[in-house]
Amino acid sequence: MTKKSRFLQTPVEPFTVEAGLTADEIIARMERISFQGRNLATAHRIWHKMIEDEVTIFLGMAGALSAGGLRLIVAHLITHRYVDCLVSTGANLYHDLHETRGQRHYIGSPHADDAALADEQIDRVYDTYASEEEFVANDNWIADFAATLEHRPYTSREFLYQLGSHLWTTTGRDGILTAAFRANVPIFCPAIADSSIGMGLSQARQKAAGAGHIDIIGDIVESANLVIRRPRTASIVLGGGTPKNFINQASVQAEFYSPAVGGHRYALQIVTDVPHFGGASGSSLEEAQSWGKLSTDSARVSVQADATIVLPLLVSALACTAPPVLAKRKVPSFTLDSRVMTINGRSVTSDRFEEVNEPAL
Amino acid sequence: MTKKSRFLQTPVEPFTVEAGLTADEIIARMERISFQGRNLATAHRIWHKMIEDEVTIFLGMAGALSAGGLRLIVAHLITHRYVDCLVSTGANLYHDLHETRGQRHYIGSPHADDAALADEQIDRVYDTYASEEEFVANDNWIADFAATLEHRPYTSREFLYQLGSHLWTTTGRDGILTAAFRANVPIFCPAIADSSIGMGLSQARQKAAGAGHIDIIGDIVESANLVIRRPRTASIVLGGGTPKNFINQASVQAEFYSPAVGGHRYALQIVTDVPHFGGASGSSLEEAQSWGKLSTDSARVSVQADATIVLPLLVSALACTAPPVLAKRKVPSFTLDSRVMTINGRSVTSDRFEEVNEPAL
Amino acid sequence: MTKKSRFLQTPVEPFTVEAGLTADEIIARMERISFQGRNLATAHRIWHKMIEDEVTIFLGMAGALSAGGLRLIVAHLITHRYVDCLVSTGANLYHDLHETRGQRHYIGSPHADDAALADEQIDRVYDTYASEEEFVANDNWIADFAATLEHRPYTSREFLYQLGSHLWTTTGRDGILTAAFRANVPIFCPAIADSSIGMGLSQARQKAAGAGHIDIIGDIVESANLVIRRPRTASIVLGGGTPKNFINQASVQAEFYSPAVGGHRYALQIVTDVPHFGGASGSSLEEAQSWGKLSTDSARVSVQADATIVLPLLVSALACTAPPVLAKRKVPSFTLDSRVMTINGRSVTSDRFEEVNEPAL
Amino acid sequence: MTKKSRFLQTPVEPFTVEAGLTADEIIARMERISFQGRNLATAHRIWHKMIEDEVTIFLGMAGALSAGGLRLIVAHLITHRYVDCLVSTGANLYHDLHETRGQRHYIGSPHADDAALADEQIDRVYDTYASEEEFVANDNWIADFAATLEHRPYTSREFLYQLGSHLWTTTGRDGILTAAFRANVPIFCPAIADSSIGMGLSQARQKAAGAGHIDIIGDIVESANLVIRRPRTASIVLGGGTPKNFINQASVQAEFYSPAVGGHRYALQIVTDVPHFGGASGSSLEEAQSWGKLSTDSARVSVQADATIVLPLLVSALACTAPPVLAKRKVPSFTLDSRVMTINGRSVTSDRFEEVNEPAL
Repeated sequence: MTKKSRFLQTPVEPFTVEAGLTADEIIARMERISFQGRNLATAHRIWHKMIEDEVTIFLGMAGALSAGGLRLIVAHLITHRYVDCLVSTGANLYHDLHETRGQRHYIGSPHADDAALADEQIDRVYDTYASEEEFVANDNWIADFAATLEHRPYTSREFLYQLGSHLWTTTGRDGILTAAFRANVPIFCPAIADSSIGMGLSQARQKAAGAGHIDIIGDIVESANLVIRRPRTASIVLGGGTPKNFINQASVQAEFYSPAVGGHRYALQIVTDVPHFGGASGSSLEEAQSWGKLSTDSARVSVQADATIVLPLLVSALACTAPPVLAKRKVPSFTLDSRVMTINGRSVTSDRFEEVNEPAL
Repeated sequence: MTKKSRFLQTPVEPFTVEAGLTADEIIARMERISFQGRNLATAHRIWHKMIEDEVTIFLGMAGALSAGGLRLIVAHLITHRYVDCLVSTGANLYHDLHETRGQRHYIGSPHADDAALADEQIDRVYDTYASEEEFVANDNWIADFAATLEHRPYTSREFLYQLGSHLWTTTGRDGILTAAFRANVPIFCPAIADSSIGMGLSQARQKAAGAGHIDIIGDIVESANLVIRRPRTASIVLGGGTPKNFINQASVQAEFYSPAVGGHRYALQIVTDVPHFGGASGSSLEEAQSWGKLSTDSARVSVQADATIVLPLLVSALACTAPPVLAKRKVPSFTLDSRVMTINGRSVTSDRFEEVNEPAL
Repeated sequence: MTKKSRFLQTPVEPFTVEAGLTADEIIARMERISFQGRNLATAHRIWHKMIEDEVTIFLGMAGALSAGGLRLIVAHLITHRYVDCLVSTGANLYHDLHETRGQRHYIGSPHADDAALADEQIDRVYDTYASEEEFVANDNWIADFAATLEHRPYTSREFLYQLGSHLWTTTGRDGILTAAFRANVPIFCPAIADSSIGMGLSQARQKAAGAGHIDIIGDIVESANLVIRRPRTASIVLGGGTPKNFINQASVQAEFYSPAVGGHRYALQIVTDVPHFGGASGSSLEEAQSWGKLSTDSARVSVQADATIVLPLLVSALACTAPPVLAKRKVPSFTLDSRVMTINGRSVTSDRFEEVNEPAL
Repeated sequence: MTKKSRFLQTPVEPFTVEAGLTADEIIARMERISFQGRNLATAHRIWHKMIEDEVTIFLGMAGALSAGGLRLIVAHLITHRYVDCLVSTGANLYHDLHETRGQRHYIGSPHADDAALADEQIDRVYDTYASEEEFVANDNWIADFAATLEHRPYTSREFLYQLGSHLWTTTGRDGILTAAFRANVPIFCPAIADSSIGMGLSQARQKAAGAGHIDIIGDIVESANLVIRRPRTASIVLGGGTPKNFINQASVQAEFYSPAVGGHRYALQIVTDVPHFGGASGSSLEEAQSWGKLSTDSARVSVQADATIVLPLLVSALACTAPPVLAKRKVPSFTLDSRVMTINGRSVTSDRFEEVNEPAL
């Protein structure tokens, strides 16, 4: 062959085994293999770009990641500001609270006898168990706390900040809610009504008439205003679900009110769902461009794998490579302790969308 | 071999091809094949049992089923009371509203050039397109309507009833929202904040200060009270997501307040997710037993397949076989037109859980 | 909106439920829904095109379809010449032989206690059981038969024709092997060594030294010569695996020797595997074009679903719509009863590739 | 709660992030998380047990792992005798040969224009490209070599040893085939007819009448005799396919002739397929017990993930932890350079199954 095709430029470089490789070295050697291994290396590279650039980084989190042992990784990402805003399912926050309150999840089997578990009031999440009795106590603890709050609607963001504060005061333990409280990182939970945190809130009404009101529509406004205030954004998604869509919706909704918004500049998703059944969880990042959720020149990658394999390796690698970049990172700063949050000193309301006349941050 | 093992009792009966088979005949011939084909036949059988028994049947709906052409099947299920209560993602209700308002989704390609689509403001859902301009008009239509409502929190159930009513008045067309309005079937949307219906509600605040409040925690109370009032229930789930969990949560939450509740008696799910990554969407119905979401003697089946293949066939079969049973079915009757709904004449509040001293329905 | 985008031409048409719909009517109503339902309707349309055109239709078959109750559908496709050549895994032919010999597979449970099954020598295939004792008897029956053949290499095609003949003589029952024998449809089994048919052949060596030789490389030559002789081809694949690749390989190998070959003109696959892990089973039909396995203007569709759901519906529909087209179909005719097979009167050798100077059929 | 349930014994231990973690340290911290992450840690533990015990370790390999950059990991496993016998698809050996001969695979895109690739004769494997021209040259190289061999049937094992030898002599480069040649590790390729190695063999017939004969049934006998000679075995499977079944078949077939055989003592599979469609690739290791493929007390684990993510991490960890155990490992030794191979000095024929009267190794 005299001349290589334009398609044959960069050879696959087989992974070579060596003792003592650290996480970042392993990922570096995956840069030029294929399939999901290569995508994982690309994910590492794109995350780096996110923290080098001046963007607000949203992290979405669905699936039983807290129960499954990843909650301190997420706490680490929050504390060290690999991310700026968490959007989570209620279950992940609830299971985090469960452990922060000193209780545990337990190693179980996917082949368990579920009738026997039901007899002993053990709840199963695939290969992991928890005590229903302890869950009931958590619900009650949340209800008691919610009943002490003012009897007015709270956005999930405001409520979760207060919950994190109370949890930190009570326990002094590290976890997602407490790390977010301490780092002043906002958490949104758009499907809070579909979780045990929601159940705790609903039980607050039994304790105090008029308690337990969440202004979930206010969360839409607030999250979009965050983007309007600081239009350059990035999206990291673990597992799809409502967090994935909510992060995209914030961008789409913001663009409606501000021409400075143009979709996420970076997107990284670690999912197990697939595109071809049409569901949002598995939808491709290319499809997201048609909606304007991502800018058409965004750097993006999907890793098709279970987060319990990928996240430990990926964040261990970042812990080696990212600190110097993090040290120089321009993070947005928030105040979250009242009804109206702020970003870099500017107010972010939940009452109405900003129609900005001042320059974006 | 002199004697068959106890395990070898019922032979697989190969499917035989014949011209002119109707949906129910096809499914009858799938009763004794294997794998997901057999599960589909079992699903048909279990749905029959549900409508023969005296249970409240919940239908959960996630994934882009309305955009994907299944909305009139769901409307049919509601109108003919194959089901009694719908729990849906916001997107499915929004895409239903889109078509009921006379607009369309379009046949597209999964291999589309998404940058070109973005240029023309076409939104892609895998192989299906829609006009962003029309979506913006819908959002505005919802915002206008929401701004006319009283400035107080509505449960998603109450709001969606009013929305269905308005839609029926305006269009007179069949669809999910209008069918539910006309049949007095309640709809819950626990993740309404994660959808374009939520976006429309949020935009109502721009039109009228204090508009667009959804009492999503009230939905938890209301759905649990529905189960407390009439404790025998069944669950049909299309695609997992928040609807799947919300239906189970209603049962679990109800059991907390009423010993008469003991988990769904029947469960049928059509899902593409798998159990082994630990997510709720793909979780097995066996696992659900450990939580008390299903009674341990429940009839149950999971069909692992895309609903766009399974639902047309399954409901076409039911349309042949179920009408005589439906005619005798004891359906719960609802009133939905005010803040406090009723089931069979008894109130179902969103303010506090019933702690029943009267006999269950 | 004054003018529709070029992308918004054909609206999705929601599926409407009606009692008494036949398989073909159901599929007709799926033509304009989305996702895998639409793909199924497209599969029906493409299969029609195949039988209207003058092409040799290959059918590939992997996964436990015979044990799972689909063997008489495949037999029907062979008998009525919806297809011209079968490429199968050994297991599907073996399980077909098992039932044709009068034995059965049995309805079982995926949650079985496998140690208990092992105790009773019951073999499990997901939710289906079979008797190991009967399997051992089959192996022996195959070994006995193989020992009676000439002690020379047979292509799998020649051997399976002889096996089908013997099975028909012995049992007079319908099945895949016997239908293919009676219809003179060739069967290839490229991975015969990885199956119980291979095990039976290997045991023939215990009975007669020099017995049990399969010329699997001859199968490559023969299958490519089939394509060289009649270059217009189509591929239908159930489940991926070695049959999928072997059918493509026949075309690629044939093109090497004959410029008249240009890849399959039609391709239809029903698979559950996905492209993004790089495996051949899940590989897309677009990718197949880069290899020349498919012509770049081929009509093609992938249906992502379990064949036990899709095949009964699809072939029931074809049984309504296809007979008039089948009656006019120009099928290739084969002789298979000797070492050198023929197609339409011309020899197809396994010794060397044809380098044709005569016009293709 | 006064007393913990027997089900709540071992708590989940959240993964904690730390800079500088090596592969083995990462995997150690995954021991007590959940889902596939935990399974990966279990896989590491079970592989250790295999090499500590006295068992013959089979490695099965399907999917495009060589093209995808994992071939030197497999070569490493062979060289350092983490495994004793490789069963592979033909494609993996062919792509290995391609690179060992000095050619490359190339980084590509899954969104490529396949018609453009076809124009330039570039073959695509998901996100990886190769030159068809180079592939044709490989085929020819294999054909030339095969034409020089004796005109008699070779088992795939014998042929691949000779091929590896020729490749080593010609290139002196490391790879799967050359590593196996140098380490005297046998390779079986039961579906060799479904691969480009098979195509090369078939083209040998064009060069020399009577060339290119593979005795694939002999491979069944040989592989079973390996197990009969040394009945304690283990199975490691990457990706399912024919290798997975062939390794199990060797055990099942061996047990037919020798009561000392009782199924694999250890089993580890890294797969992306799922059990519920009934296919062998995704079948569970529990199901394998019903067949006697695994002993009912075997240590076993399935990791549901892409091997391109899992294998680099897993083998990097083993490279840290396993060397001391490997140093003491009692490996079986083979001679492979003639028609009859030997294991630990005893002959392993392909003509007939051993019916052993001498003690097993």
